Amino acid sequence: MLPLTSGNTRVKESRKLSRRSVRAERRLFLADGPKAVEGALALPGCVVEVYATPAAAEQYAALAAAGPAWTLVDDRALASLSDSVTPAGVVALCRFVDRPLAHVLDRAPRLVAICADVRDPGNAGTVVRCADAAGADAVVFAGQSVDAYNPKTVRASVGSLFHLPLAVEPDPAAAVRAAQDAGLTVLAADGAGEVELYESDELLARPTAWLFGNEAWGLPPELAELADHRVRIPIHGRAESLNLSTAAALCLYASAREQRR
Amino acid sequence: MLPLTSGNTRVKESRKLSRRSVRAERRLFLADGPKAVEGALALPGCVVEVYATPAAAEQYAALAAAGPAWTLVDDRALASLSDSVTPAGVVALCRFVDRPLAHVLDRAPRLVAICADVRDPGNAGTVVRCADAAGADAVVFAGQSVDAYNPKTVRASVGSLFHLPLAVEPDPAAAVRAAQDAGLTVLAADGAGEVELYESDELLARPTAWLFGNEAWGLPPELAELADHRVRIPIHGRAESLNLSTAAALCLYASAREQRR
Repeated sequence: MLPLTSGNTRVKESRKLSRRSVRAERRLFLADGPKAVEGALALPGCVVEVYATPAAAEQYAALAAAGPAWTLVDDRALASLSDSVTPAGVVALCRFVDRPLAHVLDRAPRLVAICADVRDPGNAGTVVRCADAAGADAVVFAGQSVDAYNPKTVRASVGSLFHLPLAVEPDPAAAVRAAQDAGLTVLAADGAGEVELYESDELLARPTAWLFGNEAWGLPPELAELADHRVRIPIHGRAESLNLSTAAALCLYASAREQRR
Repeated sequence: MLPLTSGNTRVKESRKLSRRSVRAERRLFLADGPKAVEGALALPGCVVEVYATPAAAEQYAALAAAGPAWTLVDDRALASLSDSVTPAGVVALCRFVDRPLAHVLDRAPRLVAICADVRDPGNAGTVVRCADAAGADAVVFAGQSVDAYNPKTVRASVGSLFHLPLAVEPDPAAAVRAAQDAGLTVLAADGAGEVELYESDELLARPTAWLFGNEAWGLPPELAELADHRVRIPIHGRAESLNLSTAAALCLYASAREQRR
């Protein structure tokens, strides 16, 4: 069979998923590149269809052996499905992976990351990747956070979006309360926090949900107040602050270290 | 005096600094936005001239009180000097801040970050910001690393480029040897390292130079071999790796913690 062209109906329908409103309506999104496709294929029931150029299908034959048969598309059709400047040649059409917050929190999690109003898709994806690396049990996108299925978020997560449970909760206060109800101590990452990260080993050893705020303006005070403690990362030099994803990495790994001693 | 327009000779000459070759020839670069300008003004002898729109000169009057008189430019001229989509209205023309490697290492440093072949300007700037926050004494851009004066690098450093000594060394092996000669233990951040970051407190307490490699392919083996030890960050989940700037933050803060106990 000839590779599908960009005029093919299925390709055209899939291309519409570049719009958030269409993704939300259909609960479908595109995962671009071999790392993302590999992650998606490893999650049962996630992948609807994999589009690949003939060259990529050959290059990633090991991946193609798993899951549904791959649909060959020509270079132009593939490029129309990818938001990458240099597409790797393989894109998976995936079902949304988020689950209700209550389900995500009901398995006695020990380490959770809650992103509240995180707006930059790259930052959000990097936080998911760090949470995965630190062994977190779940990630929650809360409040007015960027869409977890934004192509840049999916790419920055390098497959981690498929590795750990994800919940989406429009009300960040509800996310904090749900974490507390699940037995987690909620720690707000806050430059002006009353607790210093590296002087709180005992606190960090507890089952914890970290609460991270917007990259520009941090956490709203009323939300930070809902947390059990506000924790600051020490700044030893003259930098005013750290960026969101490095701050999240330091907090999550500090918890992982104390919890795993 | 009327604000200068984009046709003004000085503005036109400054605009040429968007090209790396022109920057290298003149040893001048542009620092965009109030944070960068503030950092540059605090470094004696760094700023040649500050360009500002009338509105920004009023908004940042406290900054304008320090250093040379500001040159008013119109909005279009300012936009032509800024690589930002939404310019903040103030750009400083600055002299290069790097110094010879030997000078940077001759003051008994305790914590140094060496970037070898780091290519992404945003990553490089974020590493500088993290190094500053962790209290590092210097940063070295080694090998085929991105230009430290790339506008994206300057912006991602959020002023930190001006906060700590910087050296540029085209030969990464020479940078490693110079650090060792200065009494520093060189630790290569390496996903396959023989030492685990959080099981090496005694090692981390020593005066240390961290060696970070390229974001895509890491450190070349022959360079990693020159380091005294190769250190891996534990990956507890299913992520394959961490991105460069989060890895650098974890390594630098782990050292800062042990050195400051």
